[in-house]
Amino acid sequence: MKKKIGVVLSGCGVRDGSEIHEAVLTLLAIDRNGAEAVCMAPDMEFTEVNHLTMKETGARRNVLVEAARISRGNIRNIKDVKAADLDAIIFPGGFGAAKNLCDFAEKGANASIQPDVARLIREMAAAKKPIGAICIAPALIAAALGKEYAPAVTIGNDSGTAAAIDQTGSRHVACPVREFVVDKENKIVSTPAYMLANRISEAAEGIEKTVKAVLDLA
Amino acid sequence: MKKKIGVVLSGCGVRDGSEIHEAVLTLLAIDRNGAEAVCMAPDMEFTEVNHLTMKETGARRNVLVEAARISRGNIRNIKDVKAADLDAIIFPGGFGAAKNLCDFAEKGANASIQPDVARLIREMAAAKKPIGAICIAPALIAAALGKEYAPAVTIGNDSGTAAAIDQTGSRHVACPVREFVVDKENKIVSTPAYMLANRISEAAEGIEKTVKAVLDLA
Repeated sequence: MKKKIGVVLSGCGVRDGSEIHEAVLTLLAIDRNGAEAVCMAPDMEFTEVNHLTMKETGARRNVLVEAARISRGNIRNIKDVKAADLDAIIFPGGFGAAKNLCDFAEKGANASIQPDVARLIREMAAAKKPIGAICIAPALIAAALGKEYAPAVTIGNDSGTAAAIDQTGSRHVACPVREFVVDKENKIVSTPAYMLANRISEAAEGIEKTVKAVLDLA
Repeated sequence: MKKKIGVVLSGCGVRDGSEIHEAVLTLLAIDRNGAEAVCMAPDMEFTEVNHLTMKETGARRNVLVEAARISRGNIRNIKDVKAADLDAIIFPGGFGAAKNLCDFAEKGANASIQPDVARLIREMAAAKKPIGAICIAPALIAAALGKEYAPAVTIGNDSGTAAAIDQTGSRHVACPVREFVVDKENKIVSTPAYMLANRISEAAEGIEKTVKAVLDLA
């Protein structure tokens, strides 16, 4: 039986959803390591950003519908997924992780988390199943688990974001782009990816190492 | 100086634009081989497909704006790109290659091609610069170059599509998913990717080999 690895998407595009490169490289690394990706996203609206102008258009799109582009239509509503269905879970980055899955981008350490996302993160932590988080997504994990678990995570070296992560009760650890941080006790693995990457191959190397580390813990 | 490799996108999503995995794996292979990707797309409208239901919604989106999601905003209008700007060009697949860049999906061998796309393909062929084509995109190259160059290309083994390619004056060659076909005389390299792939790692292997072969010819 292949290990089942949840991949939580937040839309399709770095400015209003999942960072597309990070999501695809996560799916590739899961497959190349002999595991099976279980893509999921919340069924909720978000405000569209035009990725040519990088400005909000005011139009609304749906996170689950747009995320389905990345998974070629093979995706579940996260409200129907339980920790018992998964051996591990990975959160790619992109602003959607900090604007749709939670509001960390606006509220920092006081972020509210989308209820089904919060439930699944807490279920995974309680079941001692590994959690991977890429780019800005470690801020979501920090907001969800900081008080209870004080996890160690990285988003690279951005001092403002690191301070907000520390304020959740989590511990931020600086990390270069091609590397990753493992919190062995909490089984949480994180990598900076496009928080630091200037090239897709830099992001890819950190993500490949992160996915391997998550699978080794699963 | 890094070699500059054009990557022609057709939107963002397998059913109405570029196949996202194929596009990202192309960008990764270009970077890992030490070349520079130059992403581009035409500024034109298309009809949105909901990738959860796989049905057309009737709404219109813009190819260049949606393609910018895949390239993180770093993208050019194809009308401003000349063959002299590039060392090679690669077309990822997805229905956008056969519905937006041309209308092969509807009209087969009688396809019309978006004028700037047709111009750039013909400029590259005339300049003897390499062309890579992935998934269904070889049908676009066949429609653009069939009569004059009779290129050999593959879309895998779909008999209907292969027959339509042959009708353009091109020659279809059957090919397994992890392999690729090289037309040395015309410097055209193609691979089936998601015309045949059941797993992202299958598509990745053919794409990595294709990009390497394109760069070796450049």
